[in-house]
Amino acid sequence: MSYGTLYGVGVGPGAPDLLTLRAVRTLESVPVLALPRSSDYGRSMAWQIIEPVIRACPEQERLLLTFPMSKDPERIRPYFETAFSKIGERLERGQSVAFVTEGDPSVFSTFIYLRREAPKRWPGVTIEIVPGVTSITAVPAVTGIPLADGQERIAILPATYGVDDLADVLLKFDTVVLMKIGSEMPKVIEALKRTRLLDRAVFVSHATMAEQRIVRDLSELGAQRGDCFAMVIVSRKDRSGVLAGDVAFSSVADLAEERA
Amino acid sequence: MSYGTLYGVGVGPGAPDLLTLRAVRTLESVPVLALPRSSDYGRSMAWQIIEPVIRACPEQERLLLTFPMSKDPERIRPYFETAFSKIGERLERGQSVAFVTEGDPSVFSTFIYLRREAPKRWPGVTIEIVPGVTSITAVPAVTGIPLADGQERIAILPATYGVDDLADVLLKFDTVVLMKIGSEMPKVIEALKRTRLLDRAVFVSHATMAEQRIVRDLSELGAQRGDCFAMVIVSRKDRSGVLAGDVAFSSVADLAEERA
Repeated sequence: MSYGTLYGVGVGPGAPDLLTLRAVRTLESVPVLALPRSSDYGRSMAWQIIEPVIRACPEQERLLLTFPMSKDPERIRPYFETAFSKIGERLERGQSVAFVTEGDPSVFSTFIYLRREAPKRWPGVTIEIVPGVTSITAVPAVTGIPLADGQERIAILPATYGVDDLADVLLKFDTVVLMKIGSEMPKVIEALKRTRLLDRAVFVSHATMAEQRIVRDLSELGAQRGDCFAMVIVSRKDRSGVLAGDVAFSSVADLAEERA
Repeated sequence: MSYGTLYGVGVGPGAPDLLTLRAVRTLESVPVLALPRSSDYGRSMAWQIIEPVIRACPEQERLLLTFPMSKDPERIRPYFETAFSKIGERLERGQSVAFVTEGDPSVFSTFIYLRREAPKRWPGVTIEIVPGVTSITAVPAVTGIPLADGQERIAILPATYGVDDLADVLLKFDTVVLMKIGSEMPKVIEALKRTRLLDRAVFVSHATMAEQRIVRDLSELGAQRGDCFAMVIVSRKDRSGVLAGDVAFSSVADLAEERA
């Protein structure tokens, strides 16, 4: 059978002008846009991001697919099944389908599940991934605090799956990115206090979007829940030279000091 | 003094159509493009990426700046000094300068040093960062192996600064991204053998570029040096459920098994 192509298209962290040229071209060229949303009655954030920048095409289908936010497989399984069936109907008709993902399709994205399932359901189907700007780099862009340079190491943890060893990770990595904060905020704050890194942490939600929120004093947040677009980035910026080897400098600040 | 704006513009991993709309607009609107290159006589990779997609503008200055690849501060300091002085002359004239960085400006980028130095040299200067597609997500896009989903954790290490504890990191993280491989390749391979993860590793150089190279059997590489665009990504994909808490599934493969 000759299937249509399945695209996973990353559309970036939220600002429509952070789509890539390739994403725009791909989204404008396919007959079917698959648009995830978190409830049957909610808006699709993916559609909200792309609508202002892609050329309207009356013949193009906008296939809204519901993926509830949940860690319970009993609850989400039927939704995935329905979504994959609908996508399969189009691919089997020879139509190409672009599955639109916020951020990048390879980082904590629903597309990953579709990508894995695709070869089993549609043997030989062509799959193309269009990488996008991930929120992991959008956050440093809006805070002005770089993710890593020189010899620095980065750890990225999905906080909703537990932060029990966070203090340990904070001691070993220079930048720690906590994604999917959810209800773990109090535990995150506790670990930051324990490692005396609370003042090195920044909370960012909806980076680059109109709703963007940056909180530099995390104690303000107290027991607030982080939403699924919330991240905490901890930047030690205090360990140049300690990790390994013959490192001479890791910042121009160091250069300037040496120069003085 | 009223300075021009200093932009750090990420132009993505190499394919020109992975520039964002914002990057294109920014690069076309400024009077000065600052283009890093690694030697006085070499080409600028940054210019090579953007040339095919930005509108030629005869009045726009292309300021080529040399930043040699080196960890020796004695060697690089005068180059940074020259580059910052040239950028400063333009900013002081009120001209906006876009410093073009491959990948993203917040991830192991020369712009980070400029970003730190800027407020000291040009007090009150406006700095804007345009995030780009980082090679950290371009590599999974070309290999088809996702970076992380569900509860998985990611570690990003610059290999040139030592990989002595790599075996330990490989045991604690689901995906390990080794950047800046350089001459560390033999040590990387040794650590992968020790942790029996050699077959979970992929070597990628120049992801998304014409020169792209993907090697899935790392023993082929032997003692070859990785260039500065080379990365090794190790994906365990074998620890669903072990890290913490009440995790139910981390892939549709698991879903399918439960369903069967």
